[in-house]
Amino acid sequence: MEVNHTDMQSDSCDPDRPAAHPGIFPTREAGKSDLQPAEHSVDFPVSVVLPAGGTGERTGLQTPKQFCSFLGRPLISYTIQAFERVSWIQSIVVVVAKENMELMTDIVQRFQHRKVRAVPGGSTRHRSICNGVLALGEEEEEEVRPEVVIIHDAVRPFVDEDFLYLIATAAKEHGAAGAIRPLVSTVIATTSEDFLDHSLERAKYRASEMPQGFTYDVIYQAYQRCSESDFEFGTECLHLALQYCGTKAKLIQGPPTLWKVTYKRDLAAAESIIKDALSRSACVITGGSARAATLADALQKAVGALGTELDVIPDLMGENARCLLKEWNFIQLSVNCSFLSDVEAMLTDLEAANRALLHPLVVIWVHLSDSDELSVSGTVAIMDLASAAKLRNILLYGIQLHQSKDTERWERSVSRVAEITSALIRERSPALVGQLLQA
Amino acid sequence: MEVNHTDMQSDSCDPDRPAAHPGIFPTREAGKSDLQPAEHSVDFPVSVVLPAGGTGERTGLQTPKQFCSFLGRPLISYTIQAFERVSWIQSIVVVVAKENMELMTDIVQRFQHRKVRAVPGGSTRHRSICNGVLALGEEEEEEVRPEVVIIHDAVRPFVDEDFLYLIATAAKEHGAAGAIRPLVSTVIATTSEDFLDHSLERAKYRASEMPQGFTYDVIYQAYQRCSESDFEFGTECLHLALQYCGTKAKLIQGPPTLWKVTYKRDLAAAESIIKDALSRSACVITGGSARAATLADALQKAVGALGTELDVIPDLMGENARCLLKEWNFIQLSVNCSFLSDVEAMLTDLEAANRALLHPLVVIWVHLSDSDELSVSGTVAIMDLASAAKLRNILLYGIQLHQSKDTERWERSVSRVAEITSALIRERSPALVGQLLQA
Repeated sequence: MEVNHTDMQSDSCDPDRPAAHPGIFPTREAGKSDLQPAEHSVDFPVSVVLPAGGTGERTGLQTPKQFCSFLGRPLISYTIQAFERVSWIQSIVVVVAKENMELMTDIVQRFQHRKVRAVPGGSTRHRSICNGVLALGEEEEEEVRPEVVIIHDAVRPFVDEDFLYLIATAAKEHGAAGAIRPLVSTVIATTSEDFLDHSLERAKYRASEMPQGFTYDVIYQAYQRCSESDFEFGTECLHLALQYCGTKAKLIQGPPTLWKVTYKRDLAAAESIIKDALSRSACVITGGSARAATLADALQKAVGALGTELDVIPDLMGENARCLLKEWNFIQLSVNCSFLSDVEAMLTDLEAANRALLHPLVVIWVHLSDSDELSVSGTVAIMDLASAAKLRNILLYGIQLHQSKDTERWERSVSRVAEITSALIRERSPALVGQLLQA
Repeated sequence: MEVNHTDMQSDSCDPDRPAAHPGIFPTREAGKSDLQPAEHSVDFPVSVVLPAGGTGERTGLQTPKQFCSFLGRPLISYTIQAFERVSWIQSIVVVVAKENMELMTDIVQRFQHRKVRAVPGGSTRHRSICNGVLALGEEEEEEVRPEVVIIHDAVRPFVDEDFLYLIATAAKEHGAAGAIRPLVSTVIATTSEDFLDHSLERAKYRASEMPQGFTYDVIYQAYQRCSESDFEFGTECLHLALQYCGTKAKLIQGPPTLWKVTYKRDLAAAESIIKDALSRSACVITGGSARAATLADALQKAVGALGTELDVIPDLMGENARCLLKEWNFIQLSVNCSFLSDVEAMLTDLEAANRALLHPLVVIWVHLSDSDELSVSGTVAIMDLASAAKLRNILLYGIQLHQSKDTERWERSVSRVAEITSALIRERSPALVGQLLQA
């Protein structure tokens, strides 16, 4: 049981780990290459169509919601990442409005997405999905025509590999498969004058969600046979498969993480989920000093109690260099040395590994000093270093504490370092980089 | 058009002001007393039943979600506040599980809620609501039996006065009224083997939401007449009114702000909405100095561009003292004076006005100095002051900047003050109080 949210914690609202979407950040994820071997194997080609042509009216934002960013990256890129890291998915077609083609191409380049092609959308949802399906049929160099096509929303970024596996295999077996969820509200029928006519028996009905899967033949034929009116007003692919191919979709209950970013508040919720995932653990580098090791032990306890697990290592040499490839947060301890050379070296290594491509990294320099004086030169140096690092998506902060023989004072300082560290890691505030905070 | 979210802003996803829930924080709200006169008048007695007995399974939290806190206050208190500030609502009955009665009483005392009574719930939702309705029928000293009862969920904190007015008046006219929303997902019927049977035509159905309103007689009779099975398995009050009183409820489409806090992610969304509302404006006090006034002008522009409107005043005397009663954020400018006496005086006034009862206040001390040296005494003083203020829900931070004749350097400093100010106001981080940040 761990806690990542300061206020909930203080009221002992301990959240369970959001176990349903660990896939987005596999523990050993390094940039984007060394993925874990999949637990399930799929032995037929699967591709994905992501309709992303929406205008985002409901969020109250000018930019369509799939292109809104949090932590410096647009929502659509998180969704693409969710599919890209699944080894058995061969290609992803993103269908976007013509006016957003250039933006989409930029996103693919900037975040180095592979497997992705952008194709222009049609005037309605079904026309867009149909364009995506047809694009999958056109042979590209290394690609084969998929046997199963997964259709998903660009604004449901938290879909996980296990559920995609269920949908893909059920689609292969039954021709079509779709995610369902229990109804959240009672569904009612209204009279023409807006009075209650009757309410539906909740247990008999389900909400149809995404992803859905189809054999290529079923979804292709459904779009070949359906009417102009279906293209214009229809929304439900499962319905077309039933009506035009006689294919009854298998329905599978999905996890709550399949939710759709619909309103502006959902962008905050999505950001919070990602911040939670990024702040689960951090790596503490002691530099080999005994005093730093003692401080690290105390921090490990205190920061752990606030929800972030600390992995303490003496340096980043040899085996320990692995930390550079897996952690999202680094704490460099430094005793009586206000030079930032260790931090500089770490920043260079992180940059070389392209670690901050998908998420901002946090680096905290904790400076333990015997003197009560602030080091002005240290303050200026960390600000300059932080400004440069920020351009590369690395957020550098400093914390200064004074060695004290007064136990009570010392413990108060350590617990303040823990609180500040925890807040910096959780909040990832770009405005506060380069500050040398006092503990 | 204003922006409150750092990352969205950098991608020009300018959110519209969430205009649908300004009621929670009326501009002139001072603590909880001087509410604006209501736009609509209701000339019959209206009371509220808030069932709050849920166990919060779906959030994945140990504490039921209505008792989870953000910004130091439990969700249920925000919902109570939404009703309490409506002048024409005479009383609120909160129905809670027996084991939470004491907790509820503590919340009512701690946040000084008036109009509120807690009564013990039953074993199901309908039994709990019924207990609440019966409690309203028992005469209390100044209370009359309500003509209309509004039933709402404890976990929908953003309901506004205008919509409550629509529900109350429609309930008075038709006997019953309820909020509806368009369906977000397609609703489908499944076969017993979990295959698609058919999908409902979305346009004909609606989601039934809260609040709902009833004349006292209708809801009382409905509960008198309904069966044990209704008490045990039913969920929909509108259905009981129809079945047992023949009352067809008037259905009114509600705003998206009626959403229900269901999952853990919704707590983050709710917190974000409240933080947005709290960071819309701030009051800058120049102390009358010309240099501070120049700085204030520059900040007004820069912080305004980041989404927070600044109201610049020379001091908090006379007419200007009103600011103490309405703002959630204060910026005290100080030129070449590292004494914190102005800030101390402000803290005393804010405390006297009980301003931080419902939301944490932010106070930022901006220290403009000619010297490049940090003031160590200032650093210690602000930390002590901040630690004391934090106990009273006031978050005090410091920012130091140096006067520079180099225009470029000066502008960089000012824009950094603006960024830091904006982040502190938006994030309201308790861990960073007492820090003297460098701009």
